[in-house]
Formats: sequence, C-alpha cells, structure tokens
Amino acid sequence: MSEQGNDFNPACPVPKTDQATVQLAHGGGGRLMNQLIDRLFVAGFKSDHLDQRHDSAVLTVGGQRLAFTTDSYVVQPLFFPGGDIGSIAVNGTVNDLAMAGARPQYLSSAFIIEEGFPVADLERVVASMKAAADAAGVCLVTGDTKVVDQGKGDGLFINTAGVGVIEHDLEINPAAVQPGHQLIVSGDLGRHGTAIMAQREGLEFDSTIESDCAPVAAAVQQMLSAGVQPSCLRDLTRGGLASTLVEIAEGSRRHLHIKEKVLPVIEPVRGACELLGLDPIYVANEGRFLAVVPADQAEMALAALQQAGEAPVLIGEVRDDKPRLVSMESLIGADRVIDMLSGEQLPRIC
Amino acid sequence: MSEQGNDFNPACPVPKTDQATVQLAHGGGGRLMNQLIDRLFVAGFKSDHLDQRHDSAVLTVGGQRLAFTTDSYVVQPLFFPGGDIGSIAVNGTVNDLAMAGARPQYLSSAFIIEEGFPVADLERVVASMKAAADAAGVCLVTGDTKVVDQGKGDGLFINTAGVGVIEHDLEINPAAVQPGHQLIVSGDLGRHGTAIMAQREGLEFDSTIESDCAPVAAAVQQMLSAGVQPSCLRDLTRGGLASTLVEIAEGSRRHLHIKEKVLPVIEPVRGACELLGLDPIYVANEGRFLAVVPADQAEMALAALQQAGEAPVLIGEVRDDKPRLVSMESLIGADRVIDMLSGEQLPRIC
Repeated sequence: MSEQGNDFNPACPVPKTDQATVQLAHGGGGRLMNQLIDRLFVAGFKSDHLDQRHDSAVLTVGGQRLAFTTDSYVVQPLFFPGGDIGSIAVNGTVNDLAMAGARPQYLSSAFIIEEGFPVADLERVVASMKAAADAAGVCLVTGDTKVVDQGKGDGLFINTAGVGVIEHDLEINPAAVQPGHQLIVSGDLGRHGTAIMAQREGLEFDSTIESDCAPVAAAVQQMLSAGVQPSCLRDLTRGGLASTLVEIAEGSRRHLHIKEKVLPVIEPVRGACELLGLDPIYVANEGRFLAVVPADQAEMALAALQQAGEAPVLIGEVRDDKPRLVSMESLIGADRVIDMLSGEQLPRIC
Repeated sequence: MSEQGNDFNPACPVPKTDQATVQLAHGGGGRLMNQLIDRLFVAGFKSDHLDQRHDSAVLTVGGQRLAFTTDSYVVQPLFFPGGDIGSIAVNGTVNDLAMAGARPQYLSSAFIIEEGFPVADLERVVASMKAAADAAGVCLVTGDTKVVDQGKGDGLFINTAGVGVIEHDLEINPAAVQPGHQLIVSGDLGRHGTAIMAQREGLEFDSTIESDCAPVAAAVQQMLSAGVQPSCLRDLTRGGLASTLVEIAEGSRRHLHIKEKVLPVIEPVRGACELLGLDPIYVANEGRFLAVVPADQAEMALAALQQAGEAPVLIGEVRDDKPRLVSMESLIGADRVIDMLSGEQLPRIC
C-alpha cells in the first residue's frame, strides 16, 4: 500500500479524518478520494491497469486496442441548466474514453431507481441519454434496471460503462509527459459546477449559467487526425483543472506551471464563483479537457481544436525543475503552489 | 412501442398498477420489469442490440466478436451465507458474459457508497471481489467511486460491466431455439434466494442454506469445447427458472415443457421455501443456468457439465405446438401453465 505523499507541499497537509467510515469528502475528486482509491481499490484489486490510474483502461482484445471505462452518476439536482443526469451519464463516459485517445463506440447503462420515482422523469432522462448518445456517435447496447425501497436511494443513480477503439499507437498517459510540453485547455472553465450550485442554492443571475456538459471525443479525434501526439489527455471533472494538474504532476513527476491571467473563465461564472466562495480552478467541468502536447505541435493542436468548435487556450507548460509540483503565476505576478483540495467544494456534482 | 402480450394465458392478466411512479416490483425480474424495459429503454434507446433482450450485447470490434454487459447490485443484506455483494457483483456479470458463450476477460467496478459506511466492510467486499475475479479468471481493470449523503443510499451499491471474447461462430439466442431441443439446468435450484430470505428473516435451519453464487463460465466453455452447440443459454437469476423459461418461450415463439418431478431442489431449500411461501422455480439463483441444446447433443452436454463440476439435470424439451407457452407436468401428472410473476417474490435479491 502506498499512500500518495504530499511532500512537495508540507504547508498543505491532509487533514485527519475519521478513518473508520466513508465520508462525503471521499467522493470529491480530491486528496481523500485518491487515498481511498489507492488504499482500497488499487491495493485490493492488484491490477496493472488500475496502477496506471487512467480514466480508462487500455486493453488488447483479439489484437485490437480498446479503451474500457465506467462511471456512476449521482448528481443532484437531476435536471439543471444545460443538461441532466442522462446527458452527463453519456458524455462523462464518452469523454473518459476520448481521454485514452479512443473513438467511443458502445455504452452500457444501468439504472438504480428509488421506489416512487416518477416515470415521466425517467422517460425524460432516457430521451436525454438517447440524444446525447446520437450526438456523440455511440450506441447504448446493454443495460440493467434495479429498484430500491423508498428512502434507500435518491431518485435515480445511473452507471454507464463504455468501450472505444484505439486506432493509433500512441501511449497517452502522464508517464509520457516531458519538460517543454505545453498545457492546453479546450475551453472556458467552471460552468458545470457553478450551474449546479446556482440551481441548488436557488440563485438567479442576469444570465443563466449553463453546464458545459458535452462530448469532446470528436475534438480529440480532430487533433489526432491533424497529427498531434498528445502525451496526456485528461477531462476536468471532479476537482476541476487544479486536481487534474496535480494528478498529472504526480504521475509524471514533473513540474506543471500555469498562468492565472490567461485562464478562460466567463464573467458570469467568475461572478457566481465569487458569490459562492468557489475557486474556478477547482470547479468541475463536464465538457472540457486538458491536452499536454509537444511544444512544436501546440499551434497545430490549438488549430485542430478550434476547427472542432472548441475555444482552446494555451495556459502553461511542463518544466524540468521541482518534480511533482503545480504552480501558478498569479495575476500580480507571484508564483503560488496549487494542491488538490482534501475533499471537495461541491458534493454530488456528477 | 410493443407491450409484451400475455395472450397465451388470458387467465393471468398483468395487474393494474400505478403507472406514474416506479414500484419496487418493477425491479423484480417479472412481467412488470419486462414492461418497463420494453416501454422505456428498448423503445427509448432504439438499439438493435437491446431489441434482442440478451443478458449481454454481442458486438464486433476490429473484426473480433465481443460480449459486453452490465449489472448493478443492490442486494440486502450485503453479507450472507455463501457470498456477499462483492462475489455476486463479479459472478453475476461473469455469468451474463458466459450466457453469450463468451470467455469473460475484463470487468469494471463502480461503487456508490453511503456516507458513514464502514471502511472495514468495504475492505471485506473488495477482498471478496478480488477472490471471485481470480476464481473466474477475469481482471478488474477500471473503476469509479461515488459517495452519497447519509440517508440517500443503502450502505453500498456496486455496478460491474464486463467484456468477454467470443471464440466461436454460434448464434446463441432464443431465435435459434427449435422444437425437439432439450432443456438442461446446470444444478439444483433456489439456494441463493432462500439463503438471502433466511438471513433477512433471521430463520435458522438444521443446516445453513448457502447461496449458490459461483461463476459458470468455465462450465459453458467446457460444453462448447466438447462440441455442444447450444441454441440458448440463460442464467437463472431474478425471477428464477420460471421467468427464464417464459422469456425464452416468448423470444423463440415456442412451447417449453418441463417435468416437476425431475427438478433438482435440495431438501433444506424445499423446506425453507414451504416455510417462506416461495415456489423454488421463481426463486433467484446466482450460479445456475439453463442450456437449450439439440436432442442429439444432450448426453454430450450433460457429460461436459458434469466434468466441469456441475450437477446438470435434463428437465424438459421444446415442443412445436402452442407458441409462447411454458407448461409443467406436475407431480400428480397434470399439465400446468407457468407464467412470470407480475412483480417479484423477493425484492433486492441481487
């Protein structure tokens, strides 16, 4: 069992928590979740694939490289501006496959329904899943339905698993990240989390903030077709950009440096984050990813992403000093260390 | 939208229920669950694969035939004689792959954990999953962890999805079932359901009834290797043998006839079922399946299953009269029509 250390930043120790029971923070995409996964699942299942800590496992079946991934979705509320649990359940899994550079093909869908859940809501979610699957070019091919007693669930939980084909020979993972590689985000940050929080808190803004929930597989394929060879791809879900950067810094043992002033955050999201006490770099997205690419391919990557309809921004670079560090040059020019949060800002965001 | 009719047996109409909300009975493996799946999921997702109503979807990826399946597990209690939610979560999905004649290879595992769940119990479940995966020869390669607030779950729900390779050209599904084919069950019936019920009700018998939870993939492979060409394979989970027979009768539009006196039910299960008011043919199993095989291969199938350590029994045959009927010759020699239950005898059995 290897507890991931926090040695690069002793000023941010992991707080002591009740170790005997699972806490809400264990699901937040932060340090506690990573510890739980390392201690229980990676250690318990002893699989090389899990050791790699990808969003997807990369398998070879009958000579064909496949990506295989799963996520359960427990978002509350079930319906929110820009999406619902159905569209997230499709796009989240499609995007995990895309992060292995795979072309998503097939999804499973499994429903855990609380007794008394309105059939009309279930119909709405199914229609939303079908629309999202069509938009992403994937087929829902197998499923399962379970019903639990009233008070033993929360309306609806959905699990999807996905299979995609990998049509290239690249190894896309943190171990391939090298000094000099450039960091590109595919679009503006923080919409999904703030849309959910605004809905939950009943906040109204001048313009409704809509979730960025969307498939990004076509954008990744566009980049690969253009000849870009990303060393790493990671979608910016639970824990947001900051947690993704820390995971890659730890996986690659490199220093990732970004500049705050270029981070794309639209004004309504910035305002809502201020009001809600959130930092946009920790807020979950459901249609954004980070691409790490060789410096001489950065322009090509930006052009390909733009062509795919994204609004990519080059936000930083990989450096060869200070292994396992993430730093950000703040608006006033000072460097600041970025760590994962211990738990999460926003429970049940996806 | 096509509601599955009940026209072969007008004496057993589907009872009217509240159609506006999901009921516990919608999860029971019976008529109501089938209607929900047809109305919502098959109609909503419009996928040829779902139309086939297999346990697994059969896909062709890069020229290789694969089986792909998913199940969520919500069994209560989490631990019971002969197994736990972890062993069921592995074996249930392994067995669904086996029912497509596939060799199970890879599983995903996704956990929805209720806040406050003991970490020690989670460790026990993970160890049980690892042991079951090793026994079935599959690898747990990818996963997900979500935590929901206390009171919004029920301790632990697990979803597994599975990928297996299909190394033969057979079409194993109800459409291939022909008159004269023989019906073989792989072993004695009703242990899993009675083990769960006994535990739930706090009943004690002279000998503890243990769940039959086990992988059956090796037994299926043994049968295929011996040259048996099953027209249909189906595991006898929710809804038990009776529901499986009705599903196959409807899918094949054939008459399936069995003999009660040869049905293998061990004495403790028979006694417990009497006490609990259950009929063993409707009780869920987690390590038993039905094989439909050509008459001239029945001996070969029985021998192969015995060699694999099962205790198979030939229980009946497919007839060319009365399409979509299941009938059973009772102990006193009279024929009785077998239908699915509307809902279920036992909620949250898997």
